[in-house]
Amino acid sequence: MARRQLARHASPRSDQSVEDGGESKSEQTRKRILDAAAHILSVKGYSGLRLTDVASVAEVQAPAIYYYYASREELIEEVMWTGTAETREHTVAALEVLPATSEPKDRLLTAVEAHLRHMLEISDYSKAAIRNAGQVPESIRKRQMREEEKYGELWRRLLSDLSRSGELRAEYDPYTAQMLMMGSLNWVLEWWDPRRSSVDSLVVNALAFVASALFGGQTARSKRSR
Amino acid sequence: MARRQLARHASPRSDQSVEDGGESKSEQTRKRILDAAAHILSVKGYSGLRLTDVASVAEVQAPAIYYYYASREELIEEVMWTGTAETREHTVAALEVLPATSEPKDRLLTAVEAHLRHMLEISDYSKAAIRNAGQVPESIRKRQMREEEKYGELWRRLLSDLSRSGELRAEYDPYTAQMLMMGSLNWVLEWWDPRRSSVDSLVVNALAFVASALFGGQTARSKRSR
Repeated sequence: MARRQLARHASPRSDQSVEDGGESKSEQTRKRILDAAAHILSVKGYSGLRLTDVASVAEVQAPAIYYYYASREELIEEVMWTGTAETREHTVAALEVLPATSEPKDRLLTAVEAHLRHMLEISDYSKAAIRNAGQVPESIRKRQMREEEKYGELWRRLLSDLSRSGELRAEYDPYTAQMLMMGSLNWVLEWWDPRRSSVDSLVVNALAFVASALFGGQTARSKRSR
Repeated sequence: MARRQLARHASPRSDQSVEDGGESKSEQTRKRILDAAAHILSVKGYSGLRLTDVASVAEVQAPAIYYYYASREELIEEVMWTGTAETREHTVAALEVLPATSEPKDRLLTAVEAHLRHMLEISDYSKAAIRNAGQVPESIRKRQMREEEKYGELWRRLLSDLSRSGELRAEYDPYTAQMLMMGSLNWVLEWWDPRRSSVDSLVVNALAFVASALFGGQTARSKRSR
């Protein structure tokens, strides 16, 4: 969905020859530039990102970047926003297919799995957004911060539903529990190595971890029906 | 302890007038420069750190930095190493005062509390080390990486003791559980706001979170004696 939104911002000239997947050459180049910027931002940081490096990774001439982005700042702004926006949309979509009668515990674990899988799938964007959140000037982060706020609101609702149904362990401050949980998920970007364990095994461990931490174990669910 | 080690590296001229706390003026200046570098590294990142900014925050003339550090790289190297080394030493010290008969669960929770409290106490160093680990060239991180390895080894032992005593939930891969737990703790640097909740309340929540996630709750300990 976010990809479609991004395309909307693309240059008017993007209606030139439409290639495979329905994306014009222009849209593909734009995407290649954005991907390159996400990668460089994740390893070099905000101050270290140079447009010549972006151009080299994206295999375009440096001035071509200005055809798509008015400035270095605008390019970085879009990387920061994209990672957060896409992950939120992915999680929202995963929740939307659940039956209306689904339990708070199932909703929470569905969101955990969607968040984790998508974050790893677009890991350059996720790393760029997370590692630079404390370094990029706030003026560039406005759109991302609105996105973070909406996403935080979604998690707050999941936690408060869990709390109201009496399933969240009583000793927690719900906001603190939420952020400790988000930390265990987001930090995965810093250590997980696909050569060492599969995404599926990571997800199984993370679901057990969150379930145990917040409400005493996923597998105990049936025994605890109220 | 690390502070004392740092002092050992200080210039030979540091034996000039010894001031309050037993630190010479030279040692105090060195520490002020290091603190300033840690702060700037945490908010501007590796590529964004300029020695003129460090000098300005430390209230010294820029060339004076070279009296203490041979290069910008050497200064950054020491910041990255200091955060990790001090936190490890603090955690080791907290474990050393436990009785030899202490249970694996108590040892683990003692380490969790020590890690969390110290990380927040030296938060500029912690943030600098964590946010820049993926951005600083490996050549500058050698000493920090050895330190991280030793610290990781300590946590691995805590987890494997827990596992061997049969107390770690059986569904986990111990390394994955360890890293999910470290994530929930390290991420605190990104969201915790002392104006919103106290360190003590944060620690109580974090201990409950880790205990529930790994072995089914701190308070359930007595009921589960084997």
